[in-house]
Amino acid sequence: MLISEDGKRFYTRLRPGHRQHTHQGIIEHDDLIGQPLGREIISTTGHRYLVVEPSVAELMKGVKRNTQIIYPKEAGRIIFKLNIFSGRRVIEAGCGSGALTLALARFVAPAGRVYSYEARPEMLANARANLEKAGLADVVTFTQGNIADGFAENGVDSLFLDVKEPWRYLPQAKSALKPSGFFGAILPTTNQVSELLNALKVENFGGIEVEELLLRRYKPAPGRLRPQDMMVGHTGYLIFARNVPLDLTPSARQRKINWKNRAADAE
Amino acid sequence: MLISEDGKRFYTRLRPGHRQHTHQGIIEHDDLIGQPLGREIISTTGHRYLVVEPSVAELMKGVKRNTQIIYPKEAGRIIFKLNIFSGRRVIEAGCGSGALTLALARFVAPAGRVYSYEARPEMLANARANLEKAGLADVVTFTQGNIADGFAENGVDSLFLDVKEPWRYLPQAKSALKPSGFFGAILPTTNQVSELLNALKVENFGGIEVEELLLRRYKPAPGRLRPQDMMVGHTGYLIFARNVPLDLTPSARQRKINWKNRAADAE
Amino acid sequence: MLISEDGKRFYTRLRPGHRQHTHQGIIEHDDLIGQPLGREIISTTGHRYLVVEPSVAELMKGVKRNTQIIYPKEAGRIIFKLNIFSGRRVIEAGCGSGALTLALARFVAPAGRVYSYEARPEMLANARANLEKAGLADVVTFTQGNIADGFAENGVDSLFLDVKEPWRYLPQAKSALKPSGFFGAILPTTNQVSELLNALKVENFGGIEVEELLLRRYKPAPGRLRPQDMMVGHTGYLIFARNVPLDLTPSARQRKINWKNRAADAE
Amino acid sequence: MLISEDGKRFYTRLRPGHRQHTHQGIIEHDDLIGQPLGREIISTTGHRYLVVEPSVAELMKGVKRNTQIIYPKEAGRIIFKLNIFSGRRVIEAGCGSGALTLALARFVAPAGRVYSYEARPEMLANARANLEKAGLADVVTFTQGNIADGFAENGVDSLFLDVKEPWRYLPQAKSALKPSGFFGAILPTTNQVSELLNALKVENFGGIEVEELLLRRYKPAPGRLRPQDMMVGHTGYLIFARNVPLDLTPSARQRKINWKNRAADAE
Repeated sequence: MLISEDGKRFYTRLRPGHRQHTHQGIIEHDDLIGQPLGREIISTTGHRYLVVEPSVAELMKGVKRNTQIIYPKEAGRIIFKLNIFSGRRVIEAGCGSGALTLALARFVAPAGRVYSYEARPEMLANARANLEKAGLADVVTFTQGNIADGFAENGVDSLFLDVKEPWRYLPQAKSALKPSGFFGAILPTTNQVSELLNALKVENFGGIEVEELLLRRYKPAPGRLRPQDMMVGHTGYLIFARNVPLDLTPSARQRKINWKNRAADAE
Repeated sequence: MLISEDGKRFYTRLRPGHRQHTHQGIIEHDDLIGQPLGREIISTTGHRYLVVEPSVAELMKGVKRNTQIIYPKEAGRIIFKLNIFSGRRVIEAGCGSGALTLALARFVAPAGRVYSYEARPEMLANARANLEKAGLADVVTFTQGNIADGFAENGVDSLFLDVKEPWRYLPQAKSALKPSGFFGAILPTTNQVSELLNALKVENFGGIEVEELLLRRYKPAPGRLRPQDMMVGHTGYLIFARNVPLDLTPSARQRKINWKNRAADAE
Repeated sequence: MLISEDGKRFYTRLRPGHRQHTHQGIIEHDDLIGQPLGREIISTTGHRYLVVEPSVAELMKGVKRNTQIIYPKEAGRIIFKLNIFSGRRVIEAGCGSGALTLALARFVAPAGRVYSYEARPEMLANARANLEKAGLADVVTFTQGNIADGFAENGVDSLFLDVKEPWRYLPQAKSALKPSGFFGAILPTTNQVSELLNALKVENFGGIEVEELLLRRYKPAPGRLRPQDMMVGHTGYLIFARNVPLDLTPSARQRKINWKNRAADAE
Repeated sequence: MLISEDGKRFYTRLRPGHRQHTHQGIIEHDDLIGQPLGREIISTTGHRYLVVEPSVAELMKGVKRNTQIIYPKEAGRIIFKLNIFSGRRVIEAGCGSGALTLALARFVAPAGRVYSYEARPEMLANARANLEKAGLADVVTFTQGNIADGFAENGVDSLFLDVKEPWRYLPQAKSALKPSGFFGAILPTTNQVSELLNALKVENFGGIEVEELLLRRYKPAPGRLRPQDMMVGHTGYLIFARNVPLDLTPSARQRKINWKNRAADAE
């Protein structure tokens, strides 16, 4: 990643013979390859750039977008709540521009796997290109198709739905998830959240939670510390739940004890 | 993890012959070992428990505490911003009760390493016990000592300070971090944030950011969706920066171009 | 208002011969009457109290409650958005414990009037007592009854509904409000907000707005400035709109131009 | 106030023979004078406008600005916390563009008075013009001058400072305020808040509070209810306190009991 003196950021994969065009001249990849990070480099027009390793968050912001992406503040939370780490197997649908795919891939690598579904072929192609650029495509299986037909995998640790009507696909999600597996979804409107909550209860999901994250940035001036004037007011509501198989919870089936409400109340 | 019908949660490591005492009877570990997750189990007094795999967030909440811990909402953000994933090497000081240590260990495993420093021996012992209980102690090197004397490691990818006066240890942090490495800290008061920002600029850190995260939970009732009455109003301010070596940025040294301000302004 | 050394607050109306019992002794009203504010007074047990004039916000917090009250942070906003000031006429239903009634009365006095409706007689009696204690009952007309039967007043400047199903009473509200008059409501759940928004559009209300206010308090320590640990996460959603008579907006009636959407979009 | 079909708002005082120019034609004031509010009017180019009475909040947004103004969300809170209502006397410095002046004037009218100080003559002239346009100039006394020289009034109920270094003027504020009177200030940075808190304690102010208000607007779509994408992240910190005369609080003077800390802790 290159940061210009005026704060613009450029994300690129270094390849011998290639060059990075910026608004302030050109930088040869060959001048970067093999050189230490954390240093300055001078462009062909004499402008200075700082060369740093990008974080996952910065890689996510750098994906080529043809949809609204999931932002790093939500992605960090999703990784945590869905218990994604090295070696885990996780399903994601739909992958959109691949920003969350990138984060999931980063955290399951090297031994785990991301199964990423997307209905629209051009989206899938763009997401795949974004993952390749980030060097993480080898831990992702991309599938183009309609998730109403079910997922090809089963026993996965976690499953995340970023689709308009996630409540339509809960039986498919339960089939793919291992018992006690982690379910998550993101939705922009309160009406959708209500609809999904209804369906999660019908499908006997447990430990249901709804939340939203507000990130407040500050101007980092030591003598004039203050929040930034504008902030993102809304990206989406996050919904989390656990896969509780009906045949393992006789009380839910027979005696109507409602595990999920109790679990959720305990938060 | 066991969840009782009335929502209480119990975290335990299963060992043959052991038993879990709860407020509602006893559960034999032997009845859990080898059994599927996502199912009910009945205690000696006839009470039902749901058996699920705990997430990292749940493990963090379950640590035995003798200090204020870093909460999962901040930990998820720290993992993301410090670029912690499988194989990375990260220093943390001080480890306190080990809640963040646990999260760092979970994400660097199996190939990475957490170097955790703590001045108070009894804290260190408790943190180590918490990590052992979570099965993650083998990727952590605990060191008891004063970080004013410097860190034993160098070239680490990331470094996080959860100490009262982090501004005192920035030269030591720079020595331990690789060029372009990720620095982070958490502080409760605005006065401390100002002090740290000052020191970060003096020490030529780059890409300085200050932020806080607000997590808003909702009651998951589909027909009466609403935020919870009370929320956590403050845990701490998060500060992030990048290690920019002075000898690699001649303009910062000679011509007083201030990389870090520009980078921060770009947010 | 009396503030004890340990921060407890006591609200009282001074009457000759009366006395205020506290957790730290007794204070004679006669010792307060005619004395300057902003001073200390000593109770019978030797404890010190600070004597100050209560603000409207403090009076609201001091009402005897038999219901959830509207909090000062929302009340200040409601006063502003409903354009309540000296001389205005405003309808409120239901009055509950009278906390908002008190604020409305304070701001319309001396020449204006609050018409306060409440279905439950014991609520009304308590609200009336709270207003009398605050010395503001003379600008309030209390009516016990069902607002489904309509309001006795018409041409009022503003109207506020704090009832469970405000969407049932919009025709009555329109009849009571002057053209362009200010409508407001408070509701705890998103489902109720959706229902009210639907009804407001059907009834041709204009300039519809939905909002919520978050108040974040800080510990006032100059050297350790920080937000308080816990904050109120939710009291209610505020909905505001303007009374646009159908017979004055031929385009809404004939040509289906939707004034209220456009007005709301302009926010 | 006129609202166009595309949501633009125009604020004007009606005067016979005058006309309002808009981006969509001209509207004759004579066509508005004496006509009912809440109705449509057609401009010379055939465009429709909705005619409504502006609220105080809308008048504030409509002031001609040559400075950052205090926003309605803070103004509503200030009115409440400073106990501003009909008949009260309040000092404000500096008045800036007069947005808060307008709100104070609206709430003290008709019997009360606002004493508004401003150092810069061109600011004062603009603020006065804004108050005249709103029809509220007759309850405001404007004074051009340096408040370091003190205020001409004394025994006022409330006093609000919107200046860069309010801590310089606390003795002057105490002289002008009645005992137990209400003090308020707004400041953008945490460093300024710390400085003011220090000075308030030195000057024996009581009941000190620091807070900030976050206003979250929603898109008023019943079937797609959600917060707006962007929100205002910061306008300023509000600081409130009470004037506690030293000669009325012997314990503060002699025995070092610190009333204000205790009062503040009680929040």
